[in-house]
Amino acid sequence: MLYSYLISLFLVLIKKSMPQIIEGFSKLSKEAKIDWLLSEFFPASERNTSSQILEKYLSSKEDLQKLHDEFSENTITNFFLPYGIAPNFLINGKLYALPMAVEESSVVAAASKAAKFWLKRGGFKTEIINTKKLGHTHFVCTIDFLKLKEFFESKLKTQLFNDTADITANMRKRGGGILSITLRDKSHKLENYYQLEAEFDTQDSMGANFINSCLEQFGKTLTREIQNSELFSQQEKDSLQVIMNILSNYTPDCIVKAEVSCKVEDLQENDGIEPDEFARKFHQAVRIAEIEPYRATTHNKGIMNGVDAVVIATGNDFRAVEACAHAYAGRDGVYSSLSHCTISEGVFRFWIEIPLSVGVVGGLTGIHPLVKFSLALLQNPSAKDLMAILAVSGLAQNFAAIRSLVTTGIQRGHMKMHLFNILQNLNATEDEKQYFVEYFKDKTVRHHEVILELERIRKNS
Amino acid sequence: MLYSYLISLFLVLIKKSMPQIIEGFSKLSKEAKIDWLLSEFFPASERNTSSQILEKYLSSKEDLQKLHDEFSENTITNFFLPYGIAPNFLINGKLYALPMAVEESSVVAAASKAAKFWLKRGGFKTEIINTKKLGHTHFVCTIDFLKLKEFFESKLKTQLFNDTADITANMRKRGGGILSITLRDKSHKLENYYQLEAEFDTQDSMGANFINSCLEQFGKTLTREIQNSELFSQQEKDSLQVIMNILSNYTPDCIVKAEVSCKVEDLQENDGIEPDEFARKFHQAVRIAEIEPYRATTHNKGIMNGVDAVVIATGNDFRAVEACAHAYAGRDGVYSSLSHCTISEGVFRFWIEIPLSVGVVGGLTGIHPLVKFSLALLQNPSAKDLMAILAVSGLAQNFAAIRSLVTTGIQRGHMKMHLFNILQNLNATEDEKQYFVEYFKDKTVRHHEVILELERIRKNS
Repeated sequence: MLYSYLISLFLVLIKKSMPQIIEGFSKLSKEAKIDWLLSEFFPASERNTSSQILEKYLSSKEDLQKLHDEFSENTITNFFLPYGIAPNFLINGKLYALPMAVEESSVVAAASKAAKFWLKRGGFKTEIINTKKLGHTHFVCTIDFLKLKEFFESKLKTQLFNDTADITANMRKRGGGILSITLRDKSHKLENYYQLEAEFDTQDSMGANFINSCLEQFGKTLTREIQNSELFSQQEKDSLQVIMNILSNYTPDCIVKAEVSCKVEDLQENDGIEPDEFARKFHQAVRIAEIEPYRATTHNKGIMNGVDAVVIATGNDFRAVEACAHAYAGRDGVYSSLSHCTISEGVFRFWIEIPLSVGVVGGLTGIHPLVKFSLALLQNPSAKDLMAILAVSGLAQNFAAIRSLVTTGIQRGHMKMHLFNILQNLNATEDEKQYFVEYFKDKTVRHHEVILELERIRKNS
Repeated sequence: MLYSYLISLFLVLIKKSMPQIIEGFSKLSKEAKIDWLLSEFFPASERNTSSQILEKYLSSKEDLQKLHDEFSENTITNFFLPYGIAPNFLINGKLYALPMAVEESSVVAAASKAAKFWLKRGGFKTEIINTKKLGHTHFVCTIDFLKLKEFFESKLKTQLFNDTADITANMRKRGGGILSITLRDKSHKLENYYQLEAEFDTQDSMGANFINSCLEQFGKTLTREIQNSELFSQQEKDSLQVIMNILSNYTPDCIVKAEVSCKVEDLQENDGIEPDEFARKFHQAVRIAEIEPYRATTHNKGIMNGVDAVVIATGNDFRAVEACAHAYAGRDGVYSSLSHCTISEGVFRFWIEIPLSVGVVGGLTGIHPLVKFSLALLQNPSAKDLMAILAVSGLAQNFAAIRSLVTTGIQRGHMKMHLFNILQNLNATEDEKQYFVEYFKDKTVRHHEVILELERIRKNS
């Protein structure tokens, strides 16, 4: 009896400390998924609370929940990102309110402040520099490049266009399609490595599905045409291997510029710092980000705070946008600032050039209700309009961050959140929170001081 | 009468086409914010529907909604990210189920597949290489570097530690704090530019508030000590300007390695491709990402799909993680792959080295209920444990993407979502959706074909 009890206790302990492998998890119902998670990874005493957390984030609207569940896989609930609004963005003479989905405090407030600052100084101006996107069929073969090049120019290229004519038909009707196809010799970097490189115009879509579908056809056509050609020996034919067909998220030719400018003397309202000094310090801060990668990384991170919040709110893919922006920031061999500043003849100019490949059709844009709302709020922009808005959001965020850094320091804006976090952990009441906002108005928030002061006021009340 | 009607019509048109500037938006109630947005940016006919969209994403739990509203500013509703689970991750001999918050389809499915594949082959191994974080006081002055250096070593450095003793007290109790402070001469890059560079150990927190608070004190101490010193002329003193005090998101010394390996012959189950060929193609694909920035960007984007989904689910800041990872990918002057692969003596190895500065205390981690759930699900990891889990998630995602690319192509996995989008836009029923999943099982989804086929079956039914 004791023996079997000990064995079952042992099994319970094993079970508790060592979660088990599961087969067919994706096929379980949401409830069964949650039950399994709770029983494997949570002590019995915490299962109820944990299950309630998941429950309270689910939408009570069944249709809406089902829609969101289908966006991804193995979904058990929704992760809320605060969805906020930064109003008063004057962009090319038109007023916008930007939808921003972001979990970090101060980002929306910073955007709003920068928008208001530039509203009185002419607003933001933007320019689409280009909208070309890229993709590659990466392959290896032992065929001499010149021989392959001749084959490509005389035969293959036409065939690649022909074989993708079906796939590109709709895009061509909309004014887009494949702009060019080039054979690239990369064998100096990796033995026998060549590329078919194609440029695409994907109009108002981000275009990933379109580009990848074209490229996968390229891979098939390349293989077939080489096998069927009499120009190549059997050995050459056998050497061909298509490694992969895939779009590039690096799109340095899908790029937009956003700018603000004003007379230096108009740079008032900077916490008591004179316009001249403010302009000098601001310029210096941007110069530092241009030459110092340790600073450039954080500088650009701040830019992306603004860009990503709108990218997410409009149903675009922030990982794609991030990868491209940062790869671009390092294009000259040293990681550098995406934004730049000049002071010349009494005029302060601050601008960003950033590659942004985004869409307003396809993907989530047509099926996610809140994304539709975001696009409507932005007056149903074209992909180019959205590129401009995103660049502005990045520039505004960067302006706000540098402005804080060279005047009051960045912590003042972040302290409210820091304080709120500490107080939340100490289960402070609303009144106590108000007290501490006042208490730390002109002081740096310190964890220890919050604890001591809270103890003091609780004793005295 | 007609005249005044025309004027008011004109005003309505102006009003409709030109949204107005708003003052004090942040002080409005949520309802008033929404009312203003709707009246300024939405035609009257759309206001009701738009308002309902915002409404249905709000939580009916008032406390929860209030909590989330306070995370950011000007919040009017919540943006849902699907929160899914990728089970069966064997990491250093222990089983995990990863929480992933991501809007892109196929990411969670890919993670689950990669986890299962490696579960049978020994799982993932990780190693924390280092956990140092960095921050700088950036300043300019005309003082000669050697003179400044002497002052720094003999006096200033001690004073910097002393003046931050209060701020670092709690962190030191937890085993962290300021590890070192160095004076850096950057005047060869920018005239008169120097840095105080500090290394930090922030233990289980990401540490941004801590680091910035220390650095802002550095800026004050530096200014005071230079002004009070008799070593410097008035001109030298006047030349000192602290430009900014700020942490660096570039943390190449806060870095983790994750790895999988097995015998080449054990690389079965790759869509009929023999283990040898699979290994060769996989290796080739990684080599290409190492030498070709156009590919490296997309390759690393795929890694970040996996990393960010867990970063978000655990309440960390994905812009910080993105900026660091991509800056690191370009550290040698050419943007390159974060992951690497070797085949040697019959053994396939695939690994990633990625800098990751994240926390499991502070920020959202203590106050966001679903973040708490995520951390509990991950067995309450230390910051180091979380670094390891994130690196594994990135490596797994990268493995799944390359595996698709070199076998079936990436589109097969993405087509389900593409099809779902098209059908959603065409208001397809559940039955119709099922029909099309079957219909396109072995074919490439094409927009035009979906339309034609849907017309056909609707006619016939």
